[in-house]
Amino acid sequence: MSGLTRYKLTIEYEGTGLFGWQIQDNGPTVQGILQDAIGKFCRAYDPVENRTHAAGRTDAGVHALAMIVHVDLPRDDDPYKVMSGINFHLNRGPVVVLKAERVSHDFHARFSALKRYYRYHMINRPAPLTFQRHRAWQVRAPLDVEAMREAATHLVGHHDFTTFRSVECQSQSPVKTLDNLDIIEAGEHIYFDCSARSFLHHQVRSMVGCLYYVGKGKWTPDDMKGALEAADRAALGFNAPPDGLYFVKVDYPD
Amino acid sequence: MSGLTRYKLTIEYEGTGLFGWQIQDNGPTVQGILQDAIGKFCRAYDPVENRTHAAGRTDAGVHALAMIVHVDLPRDDDPYKVMSGINFHLNRGPVVVLKAERVSHDFHARFSALKRYYRYHMINRPAPLTFQRHRAWQVRAPLDVEAMREAATHLVGHHDFTTFRSVECQSQSPVKTLDNLDIIEAGEHIYFDCSARSFLHHQVRSMVGCLYYVGKGKWTPDDMKGALEAADRAALGFNAPPDGLYFVKVDYPD
Repeated sequence: MSGLTRYKLTIEYEGTGLFGWQIQDNGPTVQGILQDAIGKFCRAYDPVENRTHAAGRTDAGVHALAMIVHVDLPRDDDPYKVMSGINFHLNRGPVVVLKAERVSHDFHARFSALKRYYRYHMINRPAPLTFQRHRAWQVRAPLDVEAMREAATHLVGHHDFTTFRSVECQSQSPVKTLDNLDIIEAGEHIYFDCSARSFLHHQVRSMVGCLYYVGKGKWTPDDMKGALEAADRAALGFNAPPDGLYFVKVDYPD
Repeated sequence: MSGLTRYKLTIEYEGTGLFGWQIQDNGPTVQGILQDAIGKFCRAYDPVENRTHAAGRTDAGVHALAMIVHVDLPRDDDPYKVMSGINFHLNRGPVVVLKAERVSHDFHARFSALKRYYRYHMINRPAPLTFQRHRAWQVRAPLDVEAMREAATHLVGHHDFTTFRSVECQSQSPVKTLDNLDIIEAGEHIYFDCSARSFLHHQVRSMVGCLYYVGKGKWTPDDMKGALEAADRAALGFNAPPDGLYFVKVDYPD
């Protein structure tokens, strides 16, 4: 560790066309793009020894407004220079560093996180999307937002969320505490804002997909309660597409 | 005119890569794309005899949230069918029809307009843009928003706007009445909202470019007054790029 400076990076990414956070061989990923740029900015950086760690490992097509990442660099630069230097090599691509900060080696982007915030953006209108294509889920059917709000109340709190969990989820337990799930309407836009210490894989998209069933009247709000209590993936109504999902921010101690 | 039904269309477009509203041979235009789709929806439609008319003829790279267009069609269809039929042929491109309405032949999208609204979106931050690339103007320098607001007050009202007028402007007179020019700050976002019965070519971009000079301290608010009073294009400070400009909406009688 000697000679390494740990930086906390706040990054933004437009996930369309990316294969999610985690580096892989099949296609471009946020981690891969970021580590390539860090390596160009700092040639002594070794991405195998000192890979980047993110607060959340988002899926293909999912976006981030302020994802937190940490990385150990073999040089001690002014944080503004780290931010602008990495951005230069990110070369106006889908990933940018909004801010860099020096942090202690106790800080871990993933394990120090106290709370994560996600937003799901739905657009309820008959016309196809232009500006928000791949960045929101377009729903044509008229939706009963009050019914969706009632259904959402069943999900908030400490529950076994197995129904809303991907079969690929690696979390040790399906029991999580959902701190809030607020549904905000603004014209044709419907935002689903939620936060929790941690989420299961596909949890937000699965919850939003089932709320959509409630909104269009295919499910009652009580059906949501039943789906949750079933604690069975087979009880899932619908998994919303990744397009509308945004990792918003993270809380850390102090 | 007999047998023709006039429709008022509310359209949205993402102007990146388009050569503006007006049809031309050099590249794709909003009018060209829209008329092609109308022709596929309604084969008897003759775009030479009955071309589309828009409330505002936006430039290359400029966007619209609710541009108003009228067109005469040789069939009398349910407006929802007109909207969805044209959208089908717009085929998930940069232009969509948000709404179609039957209107009388007295209605003219351009000549009936009482007031036009534009918004210019600036993003003031050091990091390059991702989501808003080509959709906002990124400014790195810290800006004095209060000074910009003071400078903007000089522009509001009835003036000769020759300084803020493109050499290609076809308006009969450079004298216009700017009803408002409000500057709204929301985090890193700065919105310039303005409205007038009509605008000169490049007027909004020229006003925003000069407000940028004031914001970064190159001009004082009084320099804006001097530039306006000079009534000379040579007194223009800076013309902001088209990326951040949005045609927002139009008011019509009743």
